[in-house]
Amino acid sequence: MKKADVKELIITSKKAKGLGWEEIASKIGMSPVWTTSVCLGMNSAPKEKADMLVALLELPAEASAVLQECPMKIWEQAVPTDPAVYRIYEIMGVYGETIKEIIHEKFGDGIMSAIDYEMYIERKADPKGDRVVVTLDGKFLPYRAW
Amino acid sequence: MKKADVKELIITSKKAKGLGWEEIASKIGMSPVWTTSVCLGMNSAPKEKADMLVALLELPAEASAVLQECPMKIWEQAVPTDPAVYRIYEIMGVYGETIKEIIHEKFGDGIMSAIDYEMYIERKADPKGDRVVVTLDGKFLPYRAW
Amino acid sequence: MKKADVKELIITSKKAKGLGWEEIASKIGMSPVWTTSVCLGMNSAPKEKADMLVALLELPAEASAVLQECPMKIWEQAVPTDPAVYRIYEIMGVYGETIKEIIHEKFGDGIMSAIDYEMYIERKADPKGDRVVVTLDGKFLPYRAW
Amino acid sequence: MKKADVKELIITSKKAKGLGWEEIASKIGMSPVWTTSVCLGMNSAPKEKADMLVALLELPAEASAVLQECPMKIWEQAVPTDPAVYRIYEIMGVYGETIKEIIHEKFGDGIMSAIDYEMYIERKADPKGDRVVVTLDGKFLPYRAW
Amino acid sequence: MKKADVKELIITSKKAKGLGWEEIASKIGMSPVWTTSVCLGMNSAPKEKADMLVALLELPAEASAVLQECPMKIWEQAVPTDPAVYRIYEIMGVYGETIKEIIHEKFGDGIMSAIDYEMYIERKADPKGDRVVVTLDGKFLPYRAW
Amino acid sequence: MKKADVKELIITSKKAKGLGWEEIASKIGMSPVWTTSVCLGMNSAPKEKADMLVALLELPAEASAVLQECPMKIWEQAVPTDPAVYRIYEIMGVYGETIKEIIHEKFGDGIMSAIDYEMYIERKADPKGDRVVVTLDGKFLPYRAW
Amino acid sequence: MKKADVKELIITSKKAKGLGWEEIASKIGMSPVWTTSVCLGMNSAPKEKADMLVALLELPAEASAVLQECPMKIWEQAVPTDPAVYRIYEIMGVYGETIKEIIHEKFGDGIMSAIDYEMYIERKADPKGDRVVVTLDGKFLPYRAW
Amino acid sequence: MKKADVKELIITSKKAKGLGWEEIASKIGMSPVWTTSVCLGMNSAPKEKADMLVALLELPAEASAVLQECPMKIWEQAVPTDPAVYRIYEIMGVYGETIKEIIHEKFGDGIMSAIDYEMYIERKADPKGDRVVVTLDGKFLPYRAW
Amino acid sequence: MKKADVKELIITSKKAKGLGWEEIASKIGMSPVWTTSVCLGMNSAPKEKADMLVALLELPAEASAVLQECPMKIWEQAVPTDPAVYRIYEIMGVYGETIKEIIHEKFGDGIMSAIDYEMYIERKADPKGDRVVVTLDGKFLPYRAW
Amino acid sequence: MKKADVKELIITSKKAKGLGWEEIASKIGMSPVWTTSVCLGMNSAPKEKADMLVALLELPAEASAVLQECPMKIWEQAVPTDPAVYRIYEIMGVYGETIKEIIHEKFGDGIMSAIDYEMYIERKADPKGDRVVVTLDGKFLPYRAW
Repeated sequence: MKKADVKELIITSKKAKGLGWEEIASKIGMSPVWTTSVCLGMNSAPKEKADMLVALLELPAEASAVLQECPMKIWEQAVPTDPAVYRIYEIMGVYGETIKEIIHEKFGDGIMSAIDYEMYIERKADPKGDRVVVTLDGKFLPYRAW
Repeated sequence: MKKADVKELIITSKKAKGLGWEEIASKIGMSPVWTTSVCLGMNSAPKEKADMLVALLELPAEASAVLQECPMKIWEQAVPTDPAVYRIYEIMGVYGETIKEIIHEKFGDGIMSAIDYEMYIERKADPKGDRVVVTLDGKFLPYRAW
Repeated sequence: MKKADVKELIITSKKAKGLGWEEIASKIGMSPVWTTSVCLGMNSAPKEKADMLVALLELPAEASAVLQECPMKIWEQAVPTDPAVYRIYEIMGVYGETIKEIIHEKFGDGIMSAIDYEMYIERKADPKGDRVVVTLDGKFLPYRAW
Repeated sequence: MKKADVKELIITSKKAKGLGWEEIASKIGMSPVWTTSVCLGMNSAPKEKADMLVALLELPAEASAVLQECPMKIWEQAVPTDPAVYRIYEIMGVYGETIKEIIHEKFGDGIMSAIDYEMYIERKADPKGDRVVVTLDGKFLPYRAW
Repeated sequence: MKKADVKELIITSKKAKGLGWEEIASKIGMSPVWTTSVCLGMNSAPKEKADMLVALLELPAEASAVLQECPMKIWEQAVPTDPAVYRIYEIMGVYGETIKEIIHEKFGDGIMSAIDYEMYIERKADPKGDRVVVTLDGKFLPYRAW
Repeated sequence: MKKADVKELIITSKKAKGLGWEEIASKIGMSPVWTTSVCLGMNSAPKEKADMLVALLELPAEASAVLQECPMKIWEQAVPTDPAVYRIYEIMGVYGETIKEIIHEKFGDGIMSAIDYEMYIERKADPKGDRVVVTLDGKFLPYRAW
Repeated sequence: MKKADVKELIITSKKAKGLGWEEIASKIGMSPVWTTSVCLGMNSAPKEKADMLVALLELPAEASAVLQECPMKIWEQAVPTDPAVYRIYEIMGVYGETIKEIIHEKFGDGIMSAIDYEMYIERKADPKGDRVVVTLDGKFLPYRAW
Repeated sequence: MKKADVKELIITSKKAKGLGWEEIASKIGMSPVWTTSVCLGMNSAPKEKADMLVALLELPAEASAVLQECPMKIWEQAVPTDPAVYRIYEIMGVYGETIKEIIHEKFGDGIMSAIDYEMYIERKADPKGDRVVVTLDGKFLPYRAW
Repeated sequence: MKKADVKELIITSKKAKGLGWEEIASKIGMSPVWTTSVCLGMNSAPKEKADMLVALLELPAEASAVLQECPMKIWEQAVPTDPAVYRIYEIMGVYGETIKEIIHEKFGDGIMSAIDYEMYIERKADPKGDRVVVTLDGKFLPYRAW
Repeated sequence: MKKADVKELIITSKKAKGLGWEEIASKIGMSPVWTTSVCLGMNSAPKEKADMLVALLELPAEASAVLQECPMKIWEQAVPTDPAVYRIYEIMGVYGETIKEIIHEKFGDGIMSAIDYEMYIERKADPKGDRVVVTLDGKFLPYRAW
């Protein structure tokens, strides 16, 4: 059993039970983004949370160990084609140098970590059309001089 | 005179005057991300803001028209090498499908616009090391059925 | 059951029943382009239309849920090889900057949406050889300044 | 003097004279898309139209011959990064197979020509936001069996 | 049953019957290049010829419909590795600009069609070593000005 | 002085003198394709022909040595974008396996040489529209078994 | 049965019989490089040699016909990753222009054929560490002027 | 002064003096391949040989230091287009796995070094057409187990 | 049975027995990096060590021969996406020229071998957060002049 | 003045003064790898160190500010061609999964930082040939669960 198999099982069970990602996350006491990324096989879960997912979604017992494994994070498309994902890529292209300038101005030389990192996605009501608000929250890592 | 020339002039003037991007943005009454992206040539400014930038940074008069032009937005590297920019790319790769799942759960089929879009970058104090907080705020666009 | 499976079932059923895409579209009260793209797995259908497709094409009941899912839109070839598809790519290459210039002249800085978007394909009689007329109709989205 | 030089001269003269592409096109009695593509160096003009462009925009005399040359049509980016151009690419990716299916249904095996081809771009008023309407109009070319 | 399946069946039957491509072509009254390309799945056949192929090669009846389908023409390798195919690629690279120059000199701005197109391959005896003679014969398509 | 410089000089002189490629070729007693490819820097000329080109086009004396040099044959685009050149690429993709099959049937295992190679381009009158006829004529090279 | 199947059978039989490539080659009276390349599916064998391979390795009878087929020579990696193969690629990169210069100096304009071609690999004893000696032996092919 | 400048100076001087690569190599007491690769900037020379090249070709004095520098070995084309260089690439593709098999059979696991490496290019007379013989001679490097 | 199959068996057995890579390495008397790379199919083992692995992990007997085979070392992604692997790629990009400069300063022209090579990975305690220490230890190979 | 200009000035001055990277590093009290990477433009220096470099190498005063800038870290070649740099790439390919396995075994899910990172390069004497020892020392960053 591999991450891809567990992902399949989770999606099937989630549909059958009529659960949403937010609901699953809330039941295991974690955030929706992290929980979804674990279920899709792009993050590893601590044993306690893995066991809760197995119980909640009635997965086979061995799925817990698989959820705890460190995933080999592979994405096939250097430039993603799906429009919803591509827009993130476009933002990286259009605003990449801007992000870099502002991080350097506020913190000095270094980067925003994508590992010591949290992420939130919210719906913001707006009379002209509701908005998606995505928050990237990563530790600043300064370059070391030695 | 092209966008690249104006960008050079702005960076030189900014250094000479000891200004930061936040300060420039605040003086023209706009956000730092938008202002920086206009100065770097990746967005167009309305005439009023372009004129304010020219005045503030003592650019040649014709720079205003250039700042108002719609830019051809080109980035050379399909996968960026700079570590600060790459981390955004990595986030897109690791969390792309997760973002898609959660947008669809909250809104239905559609995307977060990268055009009707705002972006903020903040420094959040944290005893374990301060954090970079980037907020992506784009209008939800539902797919049209016709 | 996935979008690819439903696509196979639809194509088989369509052949067996001797139906055309236009006919299918007309029977569910939608346009041919949208209907075809839903059947090929590149758009999601609202429940009512998904159910009508299932009934019309005598698909298994669970196909309706699959037709309603938000698709992960993947195309494998960055540059398509099929001549009929390549010609669209060629038009994008040859006329891309022209389209950009004219949109900016008519609307200001922004883009034609590919999400809030409709498309029509017609046959136009012409004594020198009939012509294909493809209409792209997308909402203009102005860049936001903030 | 090459196409790129003439393009530069045209853009400068156009700005200086405050002309739009539609206006230029109308003065030489051709469509805006074709006229713009000639000025940007992606199409060749017949002598009469080239001379009219030279006169209208007060270009150097030798520019006429350059406008008449058959261009080597090069685009550098296999996948365009500019958002306005990318959306055409996205439409090709999302709807490519659909276009192919409908052309084959209406005409049989063959393609829409990108050579014996016309293109129009219009602004359509819409209370929910005006729309860009792009019309691709190419001769159907049937595959030959021999 | 798909084009790839029919291709397999044809190759197996052709071997079993000891037929050559020329012989097959001659028996269905078409040229060898066109016939071979239909059998390999890169062209569609009119019903009459498809039926003749099915009869001649004793294919299952449903193969006729598959042979009549408009193929999705995919080649996997942007630069082909097989030496016999690569040489055509090399000729395109070495002589591409030359071909363009001479077509423009003889016809004006336009291209040789690859759709309204015929192709022949012959063996020419030569005392220094026989030669392969490939004839590309495509309709000239002039660019349209509108 | 390099091949690119001589190419520029030749194109300028050719325009000034109102010569065509066919005329130049005929005056030096060679074929138009070979002559054009030499002038564009993709083939080397024997001294006698190089001197004739220099005399005919009134090039600087040192151009003869440059025309005799063995060129480093570089093309920048793995997949060419220019429509006239792309059609040759498309033919290679669509008919590549067919060409291979027919060469093997007529000659056994081996290839058509692109070195011991001649090429001709003709205009063929046709009431439905004149046709471009390109002839590739290369020595068959059998694989050696040793 | 395809080339890949026969390759598998040969490797299994070779292991079971404890044969080396040199030994196999010697028993069919051919060179080791050619023999190995035939067994790996990258060259075709004449009937006599194919039959000898079938007998020697006790392959199924139909393997002989497969060994005689002209292979479609595909390699998946444009830049090979395996270190032993990569070193050949590196030599091509580092010494490519040198090889070209020396061939042109010794022979004039043309190439070393990779078709009318033999190759040998030997072990040369050396007190500082034995050496691999690879000999490429290809017919010189002069460019044709026509 | 950089390697590329010295390469230009060497080629100019070589032409002016009517020297060949073999002659230059012989005068500095080294092999033609190594000497040519040093002159083209793809290898570094020991001081003694660099000084001899400077004297022989009457280069400026500072060229000696440049010839002694360790070059950054860059080649632009992952797949080379020049036919003479491409054939080496093709040999690597067609015979790569064969080379690997035979090295492993003769030496065990390891590679042929491209660093502790010599290379020779000879002309071999042959009544059917002279042949290019390229000898690659590299130290076998066994993989280390630790 | 192939390397990929043995890798699967080893990972399953390792989990079932609750062994770590360090423990396995220690039991066969080799280093953890080498042992892991053999188990993952990227190095070959001498017979003695292969037999020890088979015994320790209770693999089928034929796995020993597979572990002794010289692997075809393939990695699919030219630029790796997994963050842990990508960081090594990033170090190569950021420090590649630096590594080159320092090797040349300390040793002269040449490289660090990746074949006559050892590698160690250690955990170093640090109050600010423990550190990963990776040691690359390869023989210096000087370029040969001949 | 940009990073590339300062790099040029440093290399020229270093040669003129006969300094090595180790010597420069020692004089500014930093490590050789960090110092070299700053001089080559791939790291930023704190003001004190930048001033020391300017004094030591007698650079123009404004070079100090440039050395302090946060660099845009670009490398052009996704797969490096230079053999000394390529070997690092090869190590990443061959041992990437191994490094990942061992980091995960020793630390759990996370990565070695390339930002909070030090690097050392040493020469280790060895009777069979001296060895290059490269030490990568990066903070372990655990993935955050939130």
